[in-house]
Amino acid sequence: MSDKIEKVSVIVSKGSLEGVYPALIMANGARAEGMEANLFFTFFGLDAIHRQRHEHIKLATVGNPGLHLATWAGGLPGMSSVMTHYLSRKMDDLDIPPIPEFVEMISDSGAGLYACKASVDLFGLGKDDFIDQVRDIITVGEFYDLAAGGQIIFT
Amino acid sequence: MSDKIEKVSVIVSKGSLEGVYPALIMANGARAEGMEANLFFTFFGLDAIHRQRHEHIKLATVGNPGLHLATWAGGLPGMSSVMTHYLSRKMDDLDIPPIPEFVEMISDSGAGLYACKASVDLFGLGKDDFIDQVRDIITVGEFYDLAAGGQIIFT
Amino acid sequence: MSDKIEKVSVIVSKGSLEGVYPALIMANGARAEGMEANLFFTFFGLDAIHRQRHEHIKLATVGNPGLHLATWAGGLPGMSSVMTHYLSRKMDDLDIPPIPEFVEMISDSGAGLYACKASVDLFGLGKDDFIDQVRDIITVGEFYDLAAGGQIIFT
Repeated sequence: MSDKIEKVSVIVSKGSLEGVYPALIMANGARAEGMEANLFFTFFGLDAIHRQRHEHIKLATVGNPGLHLATWAGGLPGMSSVMTHYLSRKMDDLDIPPIPEFVEMISDSGAGLYACKASVDLFGLGKDDFIDQVRDIITVGEFYDLAAGGQIIFT
Repeated sequence: MSDKIEKVSVIVSKGSLEGVYPALIMANGARAEGMEANLFFTFFGLDAIHRQRHEHIKLATVGNPGLHLATWAGGLPGMSSVMTHYLSRKMDDLDIPPIPEFVEMISDSGAGLYACKASVDLFGLGKDDFIDQVRDIITVGEFYDLAAGGQIIFT
Repeated sequence: MSDKIEKVSVIVSKGSLEGVYPALIMANGARAEGMEANLFFTFFGLDAIHRQRHEHIKLATVGNPGLHLATWAGGLPGMSSVMTHYLSRKMDDLDIPPIPEFVEMISDSGAGLYACKASVDLFGLGKDDFIDQVRDIITVGEFYDLAAGGQIIFT
């Protein structure tokens, strides 16, 4: 019952900085331990593999009491960019790469990157909108086949 | 180790459009592949099976940088409704049903719908507040019994 | 295939009231059924085990359409506190303890509490910032070792 985990399949459904990073950290940690790892990008999570958008992923500064910002302050024009910049600098100090480089690094380590077909259709996107590292656009059913025998982590 | 997944139990904890849809899509995809599927509605996720509320589930337009709306714009009166309407039309084009019909369709396909007892008590609700498709109000312990032998997906 | 679940490892990644409670309820339910349970606090979820902050976790009143508050109302100064207070009173009526007591209770029941090393470093925190019940600061790889043979629930 306590065998080692052999595979981790992470679903990335959010398009905010604090939504995407935990997903990448879970996948990266799995690869670092020699486990098989897959990332399945769906809904707003598609931003993390979108050629134009993946460099512009921001922290949610409203609706995020964890930041301990007053709600009115979180809504100030530019606040999301300021906080994102601040956190990015701290990540840089810790050698945590920005999202585009982090995604590429995880792909290079052998993890599989997949986009969710239903979401791709919903947002009117195509294979060319995504970075080259994306292996395929697959259905939820195909994702389950990929994930079988391992842990599914929905983020 | 790579046997097919036989069962998927999805926990629905959020009451926003972008919180509920991925849950329904994961459950629907499981049924489409012939897997057993359960949906466990908890916290604000209860809205998706609430008779009066399930038709009024909206997109979060603030605290959602994935939408690429300025924070101040997301907070404009009516913006959540406008964006929800826009996304609903695109879903309609793709034959993705609105939430009430989608929930019913998944139930008709044989998936089990359950409400979380602790949350039902917290919000002062009862069995009559929910759509007929809800099989039962169950505890977290009973949910674990249902989910045993399969994948748990918390959304 | 339908053996009982023996272990549940819950990842707590959010710092809002409606993010932390479901995690605690899932872990508490697992212990109540005699399962092994672990809690792994990461990103803003660290607030739930932070000595100074764990008593000040609030409900997100903007970006949370599940509350059925107008967006502008959710952003009013103090609204998050008002709603948090309201919900806390209802929880009190149901004998659901406030977050600090609930975390302690779950720890006393034998669940393991762990902080995520990458997040601890990111926010410049140390072991002394956390409540005594936290067993250790561990890496994602070490978390996977702990979680092997059970269900992982990312919240």
